[in-house]
Amino acid sequence: MTYNAPLKDMLFVVNELANLSEINQLPGCEDATPDTVEAVLEENAKFCGEVVAPLNHPGDKEPSYWHDGQVTTSKGFKEAFRGFADAGWQGVQHPAEFGGQGLPKLVATPCIEMLNSANIAFALVGLLTDGAIEALLTAGTAEQKTRFIEPLISGKWTGTMNLTEPQAGSDLAAVRTRAVPQGDGTYKIFGTKIFITYGEHDMAENIIHLVLARTPDAPPGVKGISLFIVPKFMVNDDGSLGERNDVHCVSIEHKLGIKASPTAVLQFGDHGGAIGTLVGEENRGLEYMFIMMNAARFGVGLQGIGLAERAYQQAVAFAKERVQSRAVEGSAGPVAVIHHPDVRRMLMSMRAQTEAARALAYVGAGLSDLAHSHPDEATRKANLAVYEYLVPVIKGWSTEMSENVARDGVQVHGGMGFIEETGAAQHYRDAKILTIYEGTTAIQANDLVGRKTVRDGGAVAKSILAQVRATEAQLADVQDADFTAIRAQLVAGSAALEAVVDYVVANTKGDPRAVFAGSVLYLKLAGVVLGGWQMARAALVARQKLDAGDGDAAFCRAKIATARFFADHVLSQADGLRQAIVAGSAGVLALDVEQF
Amino acid sequence: MTYNAPLKDMLFVVNELANLSEINQLPGCEDATPDTVEAVLEENAKFCGEVVAPLNHPGDKEPSYWHDGQVTTSKGFKEAFRGFADAGWQGVQHPAEFGGQGLPKLVATPCIEMLNSANIAFALVGLLTDGAIEALLTAGTAEQKTRFIEPLISGKWTGTMNLTEPQAGSDLAAVRTRAVPQGDGTYKIFGTKIFITYGEHDMAENIIHLVLARTPDAPPGVKGISLFIVPKFMVNDDGSLGERNDVHCVSIEHKLGIKASPTAVLQFGDHGGAIGTLVGEENRGLEYMFIMMNAARFGVGLQGIGLAERAYQQAVAFAKERVQSRAVEGSAGPVAVIHHPDVRRMLMSMRAQTEAARALAYVGAGLSDLAHSHPDEATRKANLAVYEYLVPVIKGWSTEMSENVARDGVQVHGGMGFIEETGAAQHYRDAKILTIYEGTTAIQANDLVGRKTVRDGGAVAKSILAQVRATEAQLADVQDADFTAIRAQLVAGSAALEAVVDYVVANTKGDPRAVFAGSVLYLKLAGVVLGGWQMARAALVARQKLDAGDGDAAFCRAKIATARFFADHVLSQADGLRQAIVAGSAGVLALDVEQF
Repeated sequence: MTYNAPLKDMLFVVNELANLSEINQLPGCEDATPDTVEAVLEENAKFCGEVVAPLNHPGDKEPSYWHDGQVTTSKGFKEAFRGFADAGWQGVQHPAEFGGQGLPKLVATPCIEMLNSANIAFALVGLLTDGAIEALLTAGTAEQKTRFIEPLISGKWTGTMNLTEPQAGSDLAAVRTRAVPQGDGTYKIFGTKIFITYGEHDMAENIIHLVLARTPDAPPGVKGISLFIVPKFMVNDDGSLGERNDVHCVSIEHKLGIKASPTAVLQFGDHGGAIGTLVGEENRGLEYMFIMMNAARFGVGLQGIGLAERAYQQAVAFAKERVQSRAVEGSAGPVAVIHHPDVRRMLMSMRAQTEAARALAYVGAGLSDLAHSHPDEATRKANLAVYEYLVPVIKGWSTEMSENVARDGVQVHGGMGFIEETGAAQHYRDAKILTIYEGTTAIQANDLVGRKTVRDGGAVAKSILAQVRATEAQLADVQDADFTAIRAQLVAGSAALEAVVDYVVANTKGDPRAVFAGSVLYLKLAGVVLGGWQMARAALVARQKLDAGDGDAAFCRAKIATARFFADHVLSQADGLRQAIVAGSAGVLALDVEQF
Repeated sequence: MTYNAPLKDMLFVVNELANLSEINQLPGCEDATPDTVEAVLEENAKFCGEVVAPLNHPGDKEPSYWHDGQVTTSKGFKEAFRGFADAGWQGVQHPAEFGGQGLPKLVATPCIEMLNSANIAFALVGLLTDGAIEALLTAGTAEQKTRFIEPLISGKWTGTMNLTEPQAGSDLAAVRTRAVPQGDGTYKIFGTKIFITYGEHDMAENIIHLVLARTPDAPPGVKGISLFIVPKFMVNDDGSLGERNDVHCVSIEHKLGIKASPTAVLQFGDHGGAIGTLVGEENRGLEYMFIMMNAARFGVGLQGIGLAERAYQQAVAFAKERVQSRAVEGSAGPVAVIHHPDVRRMLMSMRAQTEAARALAYVGAGLSDLAHSHPDEATRKANLAVYEYLVPVIKGWSTEMSENVARDGVQVHGGMGFIEETGAAQHYRDAKILTIYEGTTAIQANDLVGRKTVRDGGAVAKSILAQVRATEAQLADVQDADFTAIRAQLVAGSAALEAVVDYVVANTKGDPRAVFAGSVLYLKLAGVVLGGWQMARAALVARQKLDAGDGDAAFCRAKIATARFFADHVLSQADGLRQAIVAGSAGVLALDVEQF
C-alpha cells in the first residue's frame, strides 16, 4: 500500500487557512514564498512516498532487535535515514547557521506530517532529534551548540529525551537518577531510564541523550531536576568521537505497535558513571525539557494526523477495489464497497476528522511562527498565547481522533482488516501509543485546564471563541443548505465550549476534582469545536473560489461536503460533551475506591 | 492477572432485571430455581477463573500453529477443553435428551460471558459448537441429531460454521462452493472456505463442519444455497470414526488478536471430493445458517461484554496499585492513580457500559426463553419480536463498546499499557474482531433497519419505547438528584430514539441511501438508550432495596452511581446521534467515488 501525500489539501491549508503569505513577510521567513514552499513539499512528498513509506509494513513485521547491548534497526532504516538527513529534511525548521534550512514551522509541519504518514516508527528518530536541537538552541552554552547541533541537524548523530523511570512515568517529581559533580565541570550520571525512544540504534554514529537527573543538593520534586547531555560516545574537542560512555541499552520493549522503533531501557553508570555535562543551570531541567516536550507534543499531534491520513488512504483504496453485496437501493450485481452508505460514512468520518485536525495543527504552526518572528512584541505575545492554548488540543485531540480513524480503517476492510498482512491493523496498533507518550491525553487536558484556561481566567479561550463567532457571522452570509447546517452546528458547538470554559474557570479552584473529572472531555470538545471552526473557514474559502471560478472546483466542492459532514457528525457531539462535563462529575466521583 | 466473575452483578441482573423467577415458571425451566442458578454460576465462575483465565495471555504469546495440515493449539487448551466438556459446560442450554443440562438461555448467558472474560480465543470453540448444535436441532434429520448432537454436547467433537469464501465475506449470495449429489443421498463438496474459526485443531476427536454450498441446479444468489454436514472424519453407523474426509486445512491466518484461536483456510474436495450430507432441504441453507448466526450473534455480543469486564478488572487492579503524581486537590505525596479524576472517569465509563450491555443482553436472554417456552403463543410471539429486535443491538453495540472499553483499559495503564507483557494490549487487539465477525456492525445495522424496524412499521421499537416511558414515570417518583438526572437523560434519549425510528420508517423505502448512511448510528443510539433504560431500571431496584434495608447496600449505592454516570456520560450522546442520523446523510453521500 503506497502513500500519496495529500498535497492539494496541505497547500490549501498552508495558503488559505494558515496564511503563508503573512508568515512569508516575517523577518527571517522571506525565503518561504508560496512557490518555494510548494516545491519543498513536493520534494518531501516524493521522498516520503518513495523511500520511507515502503519500509512501514516490513518494519512492523521485522522489528528492531536487541542483541548484547546493540540494537539492529529494521531493514532499510539505516539507508533511509541517511537519505533523509542528506537531503536536509532533519533541518527544515532549524537555523541556517547550524546547517538547517531555516524555514518556518508552517513549512516543517506538513513535512513532518508526511514523514509520519509514511512511517511513524521511522519518523520518531527525527522527532526526538528535533526536540534535542530545540533544547540545546534554547539552553545550551555556545560551546554545546557548536559541538552538538550541527551533527544533529546533519543526521550524523541523533538525539533522545530521557525522562521516564520505572517509578516515574507522567510524574517527573519522582525522578531519581543521580548526577554527581566531578569538580571538572562534568557530572557522573547514575540511574535507569525506561521507554527511551531510539535510545540505542545503528542508524547514526553517535546518540546524544538529554537526561533528567538530580544533583546531590537538589531540592525534592520537580524543582530539583537538572538536564544533562550524555553522549553515547564522548565527543573530543575537534568533534571526533572519543571513548564509549557508560550508558548502555539493557533491553528493548516488546510493544503493541511502532515495533520498528526501538524503545530502550538505558542503564547509566553501572561501570563507574556516565559522563554528562549540564545544560543551562542546575535545577532548571524541567523548564528546558518542557521546550523539548512542547515541540514534541505538537509533533505527536502531527503523528496522529499523519497516521490518520495513511489509514484513510488505505481504506479508500480497499473500498474502491473490494466488490461485495448489492447496493441498498438495488443494483444489477455486487458493487464496490465504497458504494455502501456505511462504508462511505466511515470514510467521510476518517477524512473529515483528518482534514480538521490538519487545519488546526497547521494554523497552530503559523501562530508559532508569528509568536517567534513577528517584529511587534505584543503581537508575538498574543500569538504565543493562542498557540500554547492549542498545543494540548492539537496533541490530545489529533491523537485521540487517530485512534478512531485507525479503528474505522480496519472496519472498512472487514475480516481482511483483522489479518496482519493487510496492513490496516498496524495503524490500529501504532495509533495506541500516540495518546500516551509525550504526556497522555489526561496530562494534555491538565495543561489545558490549568496553565491554559484557569491561569488567565479563560481570556485566551474567549479570544479564540470571538474569532469563531466572526466565522459564524460569515457563514450566515452564504445562503445554502450546507452552510446553514455548518453554521447551526458551529453556533451550538461554540456555545457549548464557551459554557465549559466558564465552568472550568469558575470551579477549578473550588472543586478541582469535579473539573478534572471532565478535563479530557473539555479537551475533546475544544478539538471538535476548533476543528469544526477550521472546516467552516475552509468551506468559506472554497465557496469563494467556486464563486470566482478560481482553482480546483472538485476539490472545493469536496471541501464543502467534508465540512458539512464534520458539522453534522462531529460538531453535533458538542452539547453532549458539555453536559457530561458540567453535570457528569457526580457519577465519576461517587464510588469509594473499595467499590471498584 | 486473574479474573473474578462479577457474580453479584450477574445475579442482580438475572434476578431483578431479567426476572429469573418468571422464567423459572416456564415449562421445562422448573430446575432453574434462583438457588440452583446461583450454584451453577458459582461453579462456572470457579472453572473459568481457575482453569481458563490463566491460559489467556500465554495463548496470545504462543498462538496455535499450523504444520503440514495439522493445527496444534496453544498450551493447555486441550486439557482445559476436556475439563470444560466433562463438567457439562458445553451443554448448559442444550436439551437433556442429548446429554445437555436443559437450562434456560438466561442461565447459559452469564456462563458464556464468564468463559469469554476468561479467554475469548478459547471460548470460540464452544460458541461455534453451540451454533452447530442449534442448526442441527432445528433442521437436522432424526438420524443426524442422534449421530452428531450428543458428541458435540459432550465435547467429544466440535462444530464449525463455513460461510466465508475469498470473494464472499458478508455477501453470501456470492458463495461458489459446489455440492454434487452422488445418487446415494450424499454429496461431494468442492471449494475453498476462509476465516473458519477452529476449522482445524487438536482439542477433539472430530470436527463437524457445517458448510454452505450450491447444488448444480440451484438458483443464483442466496436462494440457491444449501447447508451440508461435512465431518473431518466420516462417522460410522455405530458412531465410531471412519475414514478421513477430503477437507483439509491449508493454512491458518496471522491475526491482530484472538491468536490462540486457529482461523483456518479449508480446502474441500481437492482429492476427489469431501463427502457431505444435506441438512434439511436443498436451497434453504441460508435460513438454517441464520439460526446458527442469530445464536452466534448474541454470543458475540457476550464476547464483547466478557472482554469489557476483563479489561475493566485489569485496569482497576492496575489503577489501585500504581502510585503516580499528587492529587489535583493536593496531597502529601503521590497517590494511587485510581484517585485521579480522569482515571476514575475512564474506569466508570468502562464499568457503566459493561454493566449496561450485560443487563441488556441478559434481559434479551430472558425474552428468548419466554419466546421459546411460554405456553401462550401470543406471548411467545411478542417476546420473540422484542428479542429479535434486540439481537443486532446486543451484538453490535456490546462489541462496539468493548472496543472503547479495551482502549480505555490500555489508556489507564499509560505507557505500561503499550507493552505486551502487561496484557492490557491483548484486549485491545482481541476486541477488534468482535465488531467484524458474525456480521459487521453495519450488517447488524442493516438487519435492525430492514427486518427489525421497517418491516413492522416500527411497531416493536415503539412497544419497547413504551416500556422505557414506563420506567421514566417510575423515575419521576424518586426525589433525588441522581434519579432526576437519570430521568432527564433517559427522557431525552428515548425522544431521540423515537424520532429516529420515525425517520427510519418514513424514509427507508423512498431514500434508502440516506437511511443506511445513519444505520450504524441508529444501532448505537438504540444501544445507548436501551442500555441506559436497563441501568435506570437497575437504579430503581437498588433504591427500593436500600429503602427496604434489603441486600448489599454498598452494591446498591454503586449501582445508582453507575447508572448516574451512564446517564450523564453516555445517554447524553443520544441527541447528537439523532442529529447525525436525520441530518447527516448529505455529508455522507455528497462526494463522487472519484473525489475520495
